[in-house]
Amino acid sequence: MIGRLLRRGRAIAKERIGPVIARRQPTRTDLPLGTWGLEVGPTGTVWSDGVDLAALAAEHGTPLHVVRADRLDANASSAMAASESADVFASYKTNPVPAVLARLHGHGIGAEVISPYELWLAMRLGVPGERIIYNGPAKSPASIRTAVRHGALLINANSVSEARLIAAIAAEEQRVVNLGLRITVPGAWIAQFGVPDLGAAADAVRTALDDPWVALRGLHVHRGLTIRSAATMSAYVGAVLERAAELRARTGWSPAILDLGGSLACPTSSSLPTRQHRLNRALGSDLLPPDPADCLRIADAARLAAAQVGRDAAAAGLAPPRIVLEPGRALTGDTQFLLTSIIDINDGPLPHAIADAGINVAEPVTSEYHQLISVTSPGLPATIPYRLAGPICTPADVLYQHWRLPQLAPGHVLAIMDAGAYFVPFSTTFSFPKPAIVLQDGPEVTVLRTRETYEGMTSLDVHPSV
Amino acid sequence: MIGRLLRRGRAIAKERIGPVIARRQPTRTDLPLGTWGLEVGPTGTVWSDGVDLAALAAEHGTPLHVVRADRLDANASSAMAASESADVFASYKTNPVPAVLARLHGHGIGAEVISPYELWLAMRLGVPGERIIYNGPAKSPASIRTAVRHGALLINANSVSEARLIAAIAAEEQRVVNLGLRITVPGAWIAQFGVPDLGAAADAVRTALDDPWVALRGLHVHRGLTIRSAATMSAYVGAVLERAAELRARTGWSPAILDLGGSLACPTSSSLPTRQHRLNRALGSDLLPPDPADCLRIADAARLAAAQVGRDAAAAGLAPPRIVLEPGRALTGDTQFLLTSIIDINDGPLPHAIADAGINVAEPVTSEYHQLISVTSPGLPATIPYRLAGPICTPADVLYQHWRLPQLAPGHVLAIMDAGAYFVPFSTTFSFPKPAIVLQDGPEVTVLRTRETYEGMTSLDVHPSV
Repeated sequence: MIGRLLRRGRAIAKERIGPVIARRQPTRTDLPLGTWGLEVGPTGTVWSDGVDLAALAAEHGTPLHVVRADRLDANASSAMAASESADVFASYKTNPVPAVLARLHGHGIGAEVISPYELWLAMRLGVPGERIIYNGPAKSPASIRTAVRHGALLINANSVSEARLIAAIAAEEQRVVNLGLRITVPGAWIAQFGVPDLGAAADAVRTALDDPWVALRGLHVHRGLTIRSAATMSAYVGAVLERAAELRARTGWSPAILDLGGSLACPTSSSLPTRQHRLNRALGSDLLPPDPADCLRIADAARLAAAQVGRDAAAAGLAPPRIVLEPGRALTGDTQFLLTSIIDINDGPLPHAIADAGINVAEPVTSEYHQLISVTSPGLPATIPYRLAGPICTPADVLYQHWRLPQLAPGHVLAIMDAGAYFVPFSTTFSFPKPAIVLQDGPEVTVLRTRETYEGMTSLDVHPSV
Repeated sequence: MIGRLLRRGRAIAKERIGPVIARRQPTRTDLPLGTWGLEVGPTGTVWSDGVDLAALAAEHGTPLHVVRADRLDANASSAMAASESADVFASYKTNPVPAVLARLHGHGIGAEVISPYELWLAMRLGVPGERIIYNGPAKSPASIRTAVRHGALLINANSVSEARLIAAIAAEEQRVVNLGLRITVPGAWIAQFGVPDLGAAADAVRTALDDPWVALRGLHVHRGLTIRSAATMSAYVGAVLERAAELRARTGWSPAILDLGGSLACPTSSSLPTRQHRLNRALGSDLLPPDPADCLRIADAARLAAAQVGRDAAAAGLAPPRIVLEPGRALTGDTQFLLTSIIDINDGPLPHAIADAGINVAEPVTSEYHQLISVTSPGLPATIPYRLAGPICTPADVLYQHWRLPQLAPGHVLAIMDAGAYFVPFSTTFSFPKPAIVLQDGPEVTVLRTRETYEGMTSLDVHPSV
């Protein structure tokens, strides 16, 4: 009874107060198409550097990932512009497409891998040991052995017991391993990652220093929470240096390599603030884009870290360590977008547009800002609110709770921007095959990964019918 | 300043009051191993119908899905025991493994498919048209054409516009299509699914009745929210019958097939209540299993629906419609479990055990109760609380926030129960290959799906190195 009254009260409050709150929220101002090198082309549809995206979608089918070669190259060379300040290793897990990774390696960027598979992939792509860092909480003994034999620049131990395991394997192999130790700092991820206790970390350092098969070269920290501003980066580096000093005070050891991990932001995408996300769902307020101009870039982060670490080392009378950054989102996030087609519109008070891409291929959209663009009718005003649902049969398969677009119809093409981070690795084969990935290099479009076939989806099954 | 005070207040409250609340929560009583046909074997490890699961894990590697043939057969024949009351179609999306589906079809169970791929799979498995129901919000025109030609028992239109599309394709094919119309009822899923407006549904019915290429045979509703009790089922069927009567009053039409959808529960697994989930995470209170005895089974749901629908038809002076159920979880949920190995223990106030299975292969565990069993030491008391994390590098990769187990060490094997619903379709290849699936039939173990290989993970990539 009380529950029912409360529910009724909430419903009335939502009905009366909701529109007032909704009206007071700021209205969306889309980032201009030019932000991603897109424009309205002569056909009235969105073109990407001379290529009509509506035609591209028709030719290759949707969903379709499009990687922009020029933007990937630009991000890579801009990251390498400060390579004297910090050494950049690409986070494989963020966008594990071999051709994308190979292109980054072509710019001199190293490989940050977190699993036996990713280590295998880096070696397949011809990455030498000194350009590989092996992280992650779940390294198999066999893969540690491989990394030791391949002479990885760093194998960062996630725990005290893993440090022991790595040392034991190095001894078996009679090969000196380049060990790093992952620790934690306040304000960064702890959970299953790194050694949180200073005493335990100091013991691990002493053990490693005493081991003839271990060269303890690295100290590794990863913030996890996204770094968007110089202030955040600076506070984070300060916390790392403080922890490193404490460890030095206890052990006399200072690392030759300071691995600051990743977490650098994609300028045009960001986590949705909880309140904004809820108001969008409940009342249809607009989602607001981040300000791309106000985002720390990889090279700036490198220079900032180098200056701060250099001052710290000078004050301690030490040679400054080599700094490593492991960006993912900042490197590839805004170099890729996902084209999707409307399959059906289910009418109602809020029309539900059903797209052929859902959480099966665009999972990050449920918690991050990703601008949604009408490829078919970019010139028309975005006045009609839609809920954009995906193709799989669950109400959780909603990418946009409430997003204004020009009138949609089946066959219309949309572009979900900033699909270059975590879209591909988090994708599933829930009822639908995984999409193709193409690379656009000026007018040339080549296939990097072909669409999964139905036969391919059952290729590992042992059954006479498939 | 106020924010900081609030945070501090919350921290103090958590510290002081937390343990008091935690102590007042009920203590977990595990469901006995026999619930799933498991037992402690002569080796002191968990055995499954004569097979030592520790040895099985060692032989096939982990993670490893194990399907129990006897339990699959038992669920299938028990579901078919009431086939005179309702016709059962297996929800393909819940567990899309061809050999599992083929085994269900061997018992006479039909195919409920929701995508072009699943339709293709059903046809590959030799399912005749009259044993196929085609649902879902994202049917491609080509797949509708295929279903029309194959003479599907029902193609359930998700929207008014899709009903028009299906009719148009039937006319092009000069073949009468067996159409169903998906509608919504209060208390069930609405969102992108079905026609919510009665007037629109009535118009669609009239249009279909006038179309010579359409045989409007079915009315389709799907609750979505899980049905565990006879009371819930009865209220749901009542709501459907009410809606059907309203539609009949407006159009004179009553369906030959009443498709009540799925949503029937798995007896030993259930959604975690929000409060229990939060208390488990924040204070380490136990998660509590559902009561398997208090769970409506498929055959009981069928008999209940048949009686209720029969009474309703008799009162209206109509022949009762044929009833269709589309169970997923209830059919396969408890017939499969996932074996995983401990890779490392990261010590701390709450030790983090890193397993080789995480959200990449066991996503449902983050929101559902799935009993976790120590295969290695089932005889020891479960006194040590662990956080069980998976192998991928995100703090979101935690399967159990707080779960007491006997002391763990690397190499220990755990079993995550009730892995037969939504584990396989929601799995990703995030940094790790997908696991193998084996079928255990008494002492015989056969591979249904082989573990993904590294080469397989890049087989669709167009790149000279892979």
